[in-house]
Amino acid sequence: MKIGFIGLGNMGAPMAQNLLKAGHALQVFDLNPHAVQELKAAGATAKETPKEAATDVEAVITMLPAAAHVKAVLTGEEGILAGITKSTTIIDSSTIDPASVKTFAELAKQNGNTFVDAPVSGGTGGAAAGTLTFMVGGTAEAYEHVKPVLQAMGKNIVHCGDTSTGQVAKICNNLVLGITMAGVSEAMALGEALGIDPKVLGGIINTSTGRCWSSDTYNPFPGVIETAPSTRGYTGGFGTDLMLKDLGLATDAAKLARQPVYLGALAQQLYQTMSTKGAGKLDFSAVIKLYRNVGDA
Amino acid sequence: MKIGFIGLGNMGAPMAQNLLKAGHALQVFDLNPHAVQELKAAGATAKETPKEAATDVEAVITMLPAAAHVKAVLTGEEGILAGITKSTTIIDSSTIDPASVKTFAELAKQNGNTFVDAPVSGGTGGAAAGTLTFMVGGTAEAYEHVKPVLQAMGKNIVHCGDTSTGQVAKICNNLVLGITMAGVSEAMALGEALGIDPKVLGGIINTSTGRCWSSDTYNPFPGVIETAPSTRGYTGGFGTDLMLKDLGLATDAAKLARQPVYLGALAQQLYQTMSTKGAGKLDFSAVIKLYRNVGDA
Amino acid sequence: MKIGFIGLGNMGAPMAQNLLKAGHALQVFDLNPHAVQELKAAGATAKETPKEAATDVEAVITMLPAAAHVKAVLTGEEGILAGITKSTTIIDSSTIDPASVKTFAELAKQNGNTFVDAPVSGGTGGAAAGTLTFMVGGTAEAYEHVKPVLQAMGKNIVHCGDTSTGQVAKICNNLVLGITMAGVSEAMALGEALGIDPKVLGGIINTSTGRCWSSDTYNPFPGVIETAPSTRGYTGGFGTDLMLKDLGLATDAAKLARQPVYLGALAQQLYQTMSTKGAGKLDFSAVIKLYRNVGDA
Amino acid sequence: MKIGFIGLGNMGAPMAQNLLKAGHALQVFDLNPHAVQELKAAGATAKETPKEAATDVEAVITMLPAAAHVKAVLTGEEGILAGITKSTTIIDSSTIDPASVKTFAELAKQNGNTFVDAPVSGGTGGAAAGTLTFMVGGTAEAYEHVKPVLQAMGKNIVHCGDTSTGQVAKICNNLVLGITMAGVSEAMALGEALGIDPKVLGGIINTSTGRCWSSDTYNPFPGVIETAPSTRGYTGGFGTDLMLKDLGLATDAAKLARQPVYLGALAQQLYQTMSTKGAGKLDFSAVIKLYRNVGDA
Repeated sequence: MKIGFIGLGNMGAPMAQNLLKAGHALQVFDLNPHAVQELKAAGATAKETPKEAATDVEAVITMLPAAAHVKAVLTGEEGILAGITKSTTIIDSSTIDPASVKTFAELAKQNGNTFVDAPVSGGTGGAAAGTLTFMVGGTAEAYEHVKPVLQAMGKNIVHCGDTSTGQVAKICNNLVLGITMAGVSEAMALGEALGIDPKVLGGIINTSTGRCWSSDTYNPFPGVIETAPSTRGYTGGFGTDLMLKDLGLATDAAKLARQPVYLGALAQQLYQTMSTKGAGKLDFSAVIKLYRNVGDA
Repeated sequence: MKIGFIGLGNMGAPMAQNLLKAGHALQVFDLNPHAVQELKAAGATAKETPKEAATDVEAVITMLPAAAHVKAVLTGEEGILAGITKSTTIIDSSTIDPASVKTFAELAKQNGNTFVDAPVSGGTGGAAAGTLTFMVGGTAEAYEHVKPVLQAMGKNIVHCGDTSTGQVAKICNNLVLGITMAGVSEAMALGEALGIDPKVLGGIINTSTGRCWSSDTYNPFPGVIETAPSTRGYTGGFGTDLMLKDLGLATDAAKLARQPVYLGALAQQLYQTMSTKGAGKLDFSAVIKLYRNVGDA
Repeated sequence: MKIGFIGLGNMGAPMAQNLLKAGHALQVFDLNPHAVQELKAAGATAKETPKEAATDVEAVITMLPAAAHVKAVLTGEEGILAGITKSTTIIDSSTIDPASVKTFAELAKQNGNTFVDAPVSGGTGGAAAGTLTFMVGGTAEAYEHVKPVLQAMGKNIVHCGDTSTGQVAKICNNLVLGITMAGVSEAMALGEALGIDPKVLGGIINTSTGRCWSSDTYNPFPGVIETAPSTRGYTGGFGTDLMLKDLGLATDAAKLARQPVYLGALAQQLYQTMSTKGAGKLDFSAVIKLYRNVGDA
Repeated sequence: MKIGFIGLGNMGAPMAQNLLKAGHALQVFDLNPHAVQELKAAGATAKETPKEAATDVEAVITMLPAAAHVKAVLTGEEGILAGITKSTTIIDSSTIDPASVKTFAELAKQNGNTFVDAPVSGGTGGAAAGTLTFMVGGTAEAYEHVKPVLQAMGKNIVHCGDTSTGQVAKICNNLVLGITMAGVSEAMALGEALGIDPKVLGGIINTSTGRCWSSDTYNPFPGVIETAPSTRGYTGGFGTDLMLKDLGLATDAAKLARQPVYLGALAQQLYQTMSTKGAGKLDFSAVIKLYRNVGDA
């Protein structure tokens, strides 16, 4: 299949590589010439604009930092909608707000195209290994159409419902994640202060009703889980600033939907504090530093 | 073994029954004559005071609502310490604050006795089935000594460390639990408002990084988990007022330890609001009613 | 002076009336023909587009609901920047985010115009009486230039500093306001539950260190302050949805500035809850209903 | 009048001095012999026990750190109730929880005595100057009885209602105070980050709806109010640990009354964080350090 791919960053580049490995023909675009060069070396065709990358393909995939970039790439003079044919499906794998997705889908529809939101989870590791989870929002027909493409890059391709529900699923999951990580941090730091061995406490929580991914897989207390970022100095996981971005999307979406998110809004402030203190690049589990009295974050 | 048992409530009564079934001789006391009668019918010896129940036994178990009751039963004129012999071990399975445990253990020590904190998790179902988890605080020796007794009432007997760490483990676990349940409630209600099918959202969270007991076992959105209290009108689980009690213990312990518990303190106010509105007897997952716009809590 | 005025809503209409009363010549525009008609009857010239209203005037004033409206009125094909001459100053009295102000000021500058942010406080009452406070962001020169115009509509014309600081001042003040009102609500409801006469409690707070506008002027407990909205059923003051908008601006600005706003974010959720329950039109002091157990909000 | 005075700390000592100056005869007791010596030098009679200090006096005043101390001084073997005659009134000026006050008042009543709660505001400065505010809980008769005594130590003697309402008034006021100070801190730090001059912002808030004691008298931003602790390095005001104590009383009382205190509970965690970081002795307005990115608290 001939596919356009726009956005060759930390996530996009390995995803595009996996499409090439699966035998797809790729037209790529990125503002960073070095990133384009690497894909070209792997067999992709380099293009000068999003419009060119989207010309004469069956599907075009975007993987960009924020809604503003998707909008520019989609609606700019040299954008996707200026070059695309009616049979081409647009797959946006960026993590953006559901309201923008609806706007973009409407613009695509007016242009005669289908727009599918398909944000991912699994991080750069999953992108490289081709084991991402894709959360897909769109009609059942659109889902069936994009599934084979996404399977070249991911393991689980989940249909979440209509347009924008892929983003809703991702945002809601990460809302829970941001809250549980801060919650586990409070409990582990409290336990430490009250004199229980953190490994013992972690073991009890992980086999009890407090059990959660933030405790049994990514426990923020160093040494409780050997493979967690906390055990290697909070490096190499899911950055605090990324969590902050996702909690921002969740609280913004909640504001529009007139839904209260008490704990989510508070968790956002906690990660915000970490970021203010210069810890935005650390894994988000470093939020435990706000609770432990072991030196500044 | 000859054992004293004080406190025959919803939890204590089935625990005492399991001790009888395991072949232990029981001397029981409770202020409620009906509860005493039931145990007597099952083979226990009824006693008139805590002191009498604690006389000439190898171990005495207390299962009471709060620290004030444990104190009264322990130190009253007709209390345990007035009747007990030096070789008798006191096992307190009540859920109380760690600071009180230390005071009680010191009083017991001055009397020549060993005091072990052994709070449980597993609810009335686990108490009846003899599948409780006991979180034990005390020396390794004391742990080995009480283990066979506790095994008649539970499945997992975990040694958490020195005196009071059993309570610390329970409090910290339930701190995480109270936070995750409110967090999952926010996310499920937000997802509903944003138009995703709650079952689909639950499925995604439960296979992703938001995964937690509050979502995959006790999901607060009706119908997501068939066996959860939410699916049967928030009845028959872990009551909101009990969660409120445990979050109170956690925030009080944090206050004494000078540890911040941001999310815990906020979660406490959410369950408090539920209780204020008359929903204290509902399962604590009913906290989602604060978020869903489907009629008053 | 000849002035353009765009946005004749609840605030804009009486402000424009006061400009007429002060002897200024007015060219007005609004999408609502009825609002335009009223101003025309009072002596203003009705115009068909923002561009026309901004043509050949010394200053043009905008009073609009949100940044999106200001952007449309400013940069649209029939917008202000398309019609304005270089000597004309643009005065935006809308309450919008500081980042948008900077963008608009830059666009105006490129067009050869000065853009001044001048949000107001004082409500519809102050707008009618001509007693508004204007918080002005711009150079000292620009401030001196717009001051005589604003004095026709307000009593206090405060220079806050460079471009956007007028908005910053308003947003920060209302952040404090949203927090103090919820805080006073907690204290008054707690006092009521603990058995003190609310009037006595209000009197003590108002002469002590808890003293604040939310208590001594707008006390949320009915009957404490005779002239407060709470005493007349929470009608006719500053609507909950307006407070929600301003807290949204504050938390958004904080997000961009990477500043934590713990209490602000939580207060936002409380007003959000009120809005979700259908109380968005009540005065924001109705937030006390979340605390008092006297029937649903 | 002959008066007993127990508790000669930072507050109690100058209060007792003012009673002497007003011509009252004083019997004093404190565990600290140095404090007793100073009062003796000023004309008081030193006593060996609370009981002796309370013997043959018209009123006995207690000024102690916490409810536990009041209980010990009241009910101990050598305590007040063991020595007091029926006509003697007990005036407790300690800041303690309302529930304990009710218990103590009941004990006093059984002994034939009247117990009045009369906590103060005004700090050590007000204690020395005799300008304290007393918030009095008790019958109108009891209030009239103690008023002349309190007037020797304070300027405003306010009758708050029945037993314990003095404490309720103080706790509720300080709940508002703790919230407004953190709220003003958020707004001032946000304003600074957004580029407004803090003095200008302070000036606007102080003449607008954000106006409050925490801003116009004790503004946490250095230099905004010359006489505020913030301007002299956060020294010499109302210590963070004292605010933490009072917020603890407020949230505990709320827990007993089943009242939510969202912002109060969160503010408590903020001051808790300051205390954890070693800033417990600084004035509570130092909480702004959690928000400003200018080095560790």
